[in-house]
Amino acid sequence: MIKIGIVGGTGYTGVELLRLLAQHPQAHVEVITSRSEEGQRVADMYPNLRGHYDNLKFSVPDVTALGACDVVFFATPHGVAHAMAGELLSTSTRIIDLSADFRLKDSEEWSRWYGQPHGAPELLETAVYGLPEVNREAIRTARLIAVPGCYPTAAQLGLIPLLEAGLADPARIIADCKSGVSGAGRGTNLGSLFCESTESMKAYAVAGHRHLPEISQGLRQAVGGPVGLTFVPHLTPMIRGIHATLYSTVVDHSVDLQALFEQRYANEPFVDVMPAGSHPETRSVRGANVCRIAVHRPQGGDLVVVLSVIDNLVKGASGQAVQNMNIALGLDETLGLSHPALMP
Amino acid sequence: MIKIGIVGGTGYTGVELLRLLAQHPQAHVEVITSRSEEGQRVADMYPNLRGHYDNLKFSVPDVTALGACDVVFFATPHGVAHAMAGELLSTSTRIIDLSADFRLKDSEEWSRWYGQPHGAPELLETAVYGLPEVNREAIRTARLIAVPGCYPTAAQLGLIPLLEAGLADPARIIADCKSGVSGAGRGTNLGSLFCESTESMKAYAVAGHRHLPEISQGLRQAVGGPVGLTFVPHLTPMIRGIHATLYSTVVDHSVDLQALFEQRYANEPFVDVMPAGSHPETRSVRGANVCRIAVHRPQGGDLVVVLSVIDNLVKGASGQAVQNMNIALGLDETLGLSHPALMP
Amino acid sequence: MIKIGIVGGTGYTGVELLRLLAQHPQAHVEVITSRSEEGQRVADMYPNLRGHYDNLKFSVPDVTALGACDVVFFATPHGVAHAMAGELLSTSTRIIDLSADFRLKDSEEWSRWYGQPHGAPELLETAVYGLPEVNREAIRTARLIAVPGCYPTAAQLGLIPLLEAGLADPARIIADCKSGVSGAGRGTNLGSLFCESTESMKAYAVAGHRHLPEISQGLRQAVGGPVGLTFVPHLTPMIRGIHATLYSTVVDHSVDLQALFEQRYANEPFVDVMPAGSHPETRSVRGANVCRIAVHRPQGGDLVVVLSVIDNLVKGASGQAVQNMNIALGLDETLGLSHPALMP
Amino acid sequence: MIKIGIVGGTGYTGVELLRLLAQHPQAHVEVITSRSEEGQRVADMYPNLRGHYDNLKFSVPDVTALGACDVVFFATPHGVAHAMAGELLSTSTRIIDLSADFRLKDSEEWSRWYGQPHGAPELLETAVYGLPEVNREAIRTARLIAVPGCYPTAAQLGLIPLLEAGLADPARIIADCKSGVSGAGRGTNLGSLFCESTESMKAYAVAGHRHLPEISQGLRQAVGGPVGLTFVPHLTPMIRGIHATLYSTVVDHSVDLQALFEQRYANEPFVDVMPAGSHPETRSVRGANVCRIAVHRPQGGDLVVVLSVIDNLVKGASGQAVQNMNIALGLDETLGLSHPALMP
Repeated sequence: MIKIGIVGGTGYTGVELLRLLAQHPQAHVEVITSRSEEGQRVADMYPNLRGHYDNLKFSVPDVTALGACDVVFFATPHGVAHAMAGELLSTSTRIIDLSADFRLKDSEEWSRWYGQPHGAPELLETAVYGLPEVNREAIRTARLIAVPGCYPTAAQLGLIPLLEAGLADPARIIADCKSGVSGAGRGTNLGSLFCESTESMKAYAVAGHRHLPEISQGLRQAVGGPVGLTFVPHLTPMIRGIHATLYSTVVDHSVDLQALFEQRYANEPFVDVMPAGSHPETRSVRGANVCRIAVHRPQGGDLVVVLSVIDNLVKGASGQAVQNMNIALGLDETLGLSHPALMP
Repeated sequence: MIKIGIVGGTGYTGVELLRLLAQHPQAHVEVITSRSEEGQRVADMYPNLRGHYDNLKFSVPDVTALGACDVVFFATPHGVAHAMAGELLSTSTRIIDLSADFRLKDSEEWSRWYGQPHGAPELLETAVYGLPEVNREAIRTARLIAVPGCYPTAAQLGLIPLLEAGLADPARIIADCKSGVSGAGRGTNLGSLFCESTESMKAYAVAGHRHLPEISQGLRQAVGGPVGLTFVPHLTPMIRGIHATLYSTVVDHSVDLQALFEQRYANEPFVDVMPAGSHPETRSVRGANVCRIAVHRPQGGDLVVVLSVIDNLVKGASGQAVQNMNIALGLDETLGLSHPALMP
Repeated sequence: MIKIGIVGGTGYTGVELLRLLAQHPQAHVEVITSRSEEGQRVADMYPNLRGHYDNLKFSVPDVTALGACDVVFFATPHGVAHAMAGELLSTSTRIIDLSADFRLKDSEEWSRWYGQPHGAPELLETAVYGLPEVNREAIRTARLIAVPGCYPTAAQLGLIPLLEAGLADPARIIADCKSGVSGAGRGTNLGSLFCESTESMKAYAVAGHRHLPEISQGLRQAVGGPVGLTFVPHLTPMIRGIHATLYSTVVDHSVDLQALFEQRYANEPFVDVMPAGSHPETRSVRGANVCRIAVHRPQGGDLVVVLSVIDNLVKGASGQAVQNMNIALGLDETLGLSHPALMP
Repeated sequence: MIKIGIVGGTGYTGVELLRLLAQHPQAHVEVITSRSEEGQRVADMYPNLRGHYDNLKFSVPDVTALGACDVVFFATPHGVAHAMAGELLSTSTRIIDLSADFRLKDSEEWSRWYGQPHGAPELLETAVYGLPEVNREAIRTARLIAVPGCYPTAAQLGLIPLLEAGLADPARIIADCKSGVSGAGRGTNLGSLFCESTESMKAYAVAGHRHLPEISQGLRQAVGGPVGLTFVPHLTPMIRGIHATLYSTVVDHSVDLQALFEQRYANEPFVDVMPAGSHPETRSVRGANVCRIAVHRPQGGDLVVVLSVIDNLVKGASGQAVQNMNIALGLDETLGLSHPALMP
């Protein structure tokens, strides 16, 4: 069995990690930490886990206990992994960080967007951006994996086939993205209240969202040059799900885009290119580690519309983290991740 | 009192019309027709109307009874107004049609998008497109008013200030629109079931939606020339509301867009230009005849993002119909329409 | 115009009061207080009110300013009206208190359930319980009105016809009540988050809820003796609405219960006894000051099931408060309250 | 591998069966039938199943093909299993019927409630009521299993500990039950539309629901005598979940009810008696084959309130069907059913 530690398991990505690991045949959670919930049983906080993890309690973070694990997941606010990663990497464990701490390669850019100094710039070279569909080989040997954000996962998987093939104008890319409320986390802020968010739709952070530089970084890598990206996130009245509607101008009309996408993802276990003309629904991936994609060119014009959906807590966070773990440990990449989505 | 007839009052725009007219100090509904519900009391079908309209029953359509009204609203599927409008216009009544029958000026374009011959092309010259913010003067003397569609209302109000001022590149306009489920009507189709539409988001009709030619027609008029429009509608898990996220490239960076929008709508009672930096929520217009708009230019680039929200059943249908009635009858334009939105 | 003051207008009952008063032809809100939001415009906090109250700002509570009003509403947490009511009553204003401060006649019982000493027991004799269907005459001359709670309104209106007529066994009454999430207020507690409350149903406070003694007090008055009441509230994933399912054993089978209810409420403008066999929906009263009731005796047994629905923010709070104001000021009781519910 | 046939797999219990069987290590679906969808791929109809069952297509029902399976599930409207069961039982397969066809032991009672003659009364003696917590031994050798209804599962599991122990007055039992909309199936009826059922709560079928005789039958068996049951179902705006709030009068106050329930279900893998004072949420069982129960005696009175929650599509239908299959085939009862609920 793989010995697993989780730092900061009280939020939605934490409980989702526990749900997924409960179905993983080789995973055993040894340690889960939370300063605020020290001593509480995990199953008391999350009744869906009653009957699983019945003896697992939150403890205060301890490097020795965590360092004895094969893998340590960070499901923490930004800044925490910065503070702990260096010491942990001196043990033999691997770190899979679900926070934003090591996603951006440029520590100054990170500081600008997150409003505080980068806490561990010396580890940035070590860190691997954990998008398996792009970086699988590097993940196999990584000691420190930065799991992509939810919007960045949906947007990059939808855009990189076009960009890698040089088919899209990189100067004019629009990502109009819609997220469920769980993307805002389990914090008790006014906007996340049921009565403030249900039966309504709104855009937010149009002036600039922290996932913008992360998406741009990934797209630049696919293009091999600069990109011009407009990213508008929206809050949607549903618990889970991201629907990315991606607009890009094609520069070569002769290419069969459907075939391009199908070939790009032919061997990817968790990317599903749907038949031409499809409209993927976020519910078709609820609880599952899948990204479903459909490619459209409305009225035969030069604007491509890519629809890309994920469950923000699974392929957009905890599921992708487990996928990274499977790769890094040399396991079957789909282990514990092959259950279908919950529908209806 | 104004004598009012309603043809086809069993759908969501019909019951919304009844709700709004119940608050209108001068309106009296004389006739409401439905072949399928003939003889049923309106308040038995719609319990929210109990205590209002207690003696009003559905009757079969009758031109004499309708023709004796001051105004006849059509809240019918397309094709019905085509069939009845000509005869009705030979009486002294006015027609306010909430269906798509007279929205497009080109009868052949109508036929292509609606899949059937246009039933009354001879009336197209008479028909006025009932967007008061553009056509108020024509509405004052109109005998036949085509109330705009829900998406077209939100999209046009958000884009025309830019286009009229010649500030946007008309060749590259994107309207990424999100609609509540009531936009699909009260028909019992699978996709409108609670279990099929709640907790999920999806795009639909990306290849081409019937509101595309209607929006294009309005934008062409604002530009005075051709436009290139990509329109992607999405189904959102909420009853009411449209959120239009509109993308356009500005060609002159020196203009103060906030001031432009504020001036364009300074005297409009039902368009609210919100302060710079705002993110309007659809719930802020729930049940109210208002379009709220915010203008953004993210990161100071050349792409303008306009956010425009309406209640699809009010400013996107029945409320705008009443607004048209008020104008056409020379009443205060806001009569019966000044109540605030229901929030939360 | 009636001069109105509102103490504590930042919660859901406060904004609902503003929404309803905006439709009241004789109301003018002079003062609205909030210590935390001092100086903020009401319409900036509640965008649905933009275009209404555009110059109204929150101010710190001031007895002189409030005392100059014809009516002062308290939309505050419990304890606040206790502290301010005495001084305010020395002016000429009337107080309509939406909080629980003056609902219970027994100050010791109040202290037990609310966990603090009663702050103004000397005013209890002055206070009138503002359920118009029971206390209309006393409300006409009241200086201090305690607006009933949401559950108590739905439960009492559904049960008192049986109890007043001596038809029900008062020892065995069950009120199984389902409430929308807005009943928990606008506070940012974990259980009110969208992701914690949507797509789920749960009971709460089964051991004892603060509305239990209030309901019991009202039922005792109707019976003229003791009652045995079991009250189980449930949290339901909707913004507004209370559905009370009330169980009671009838002691006389010969009575026509439908007629009994119809007669009891024949002259009540805001109680709608639906036809026999009906199942009222909470959405049929959304936004409206109505209680709809249906009476059933399943399988002809001796158990009566009464279904009683209200909008917790309207007939269960702010609408009933305005109704009380109308009565107390000698106005038409329905003024500003006659609009239909919002459906769908 | 176990060879499985499914008759009528196009509804919600059908797709849920497929979801659960995809996670069952020994199940292989050989045949799935649907007259209306003949030839369609299952994964085309249910996109959550893409990547699973990729070659499985709907076929017309064929007794030879079904008879070659180890188990045949019926996920059909009532009447279908009546017509096919007899012939199928002449093969060596077992039948697990999710419909109501064989739940009631009295064929005349069945006819009264379902409004048509019972189609196979001669098989009633063979049929076993598939509630494992009551009938496990009989299920082991059953050829024809009638899977309990959703309400009956939640209600019986919550009440039988009291009734078996002779602790409750059998003459006065109330089951106030709240169900998600998926309980109404995938049929396109008006009441199941999103806009008709979201943001609202209502009771239905108060005069008599088909699950009433089924619950009564189970309770009578537990009591060993007649019972007086009032059952009021409610439609709740959520996809999945049943919350049964059960009221019963205890006749012996000395018993520790918490201990009674814990002992009754000590060895049950799928019944979770929660700690005293708990309020189970339906979301804590979403997608999982669990019934969570809490027992309350409010204010120490003689009325017991039992709260019992299940996922209507899992423990209330397809999960319980798989549990029955595991038992009948001598497998570990929890095989394929041990994943945690999806929360949030």
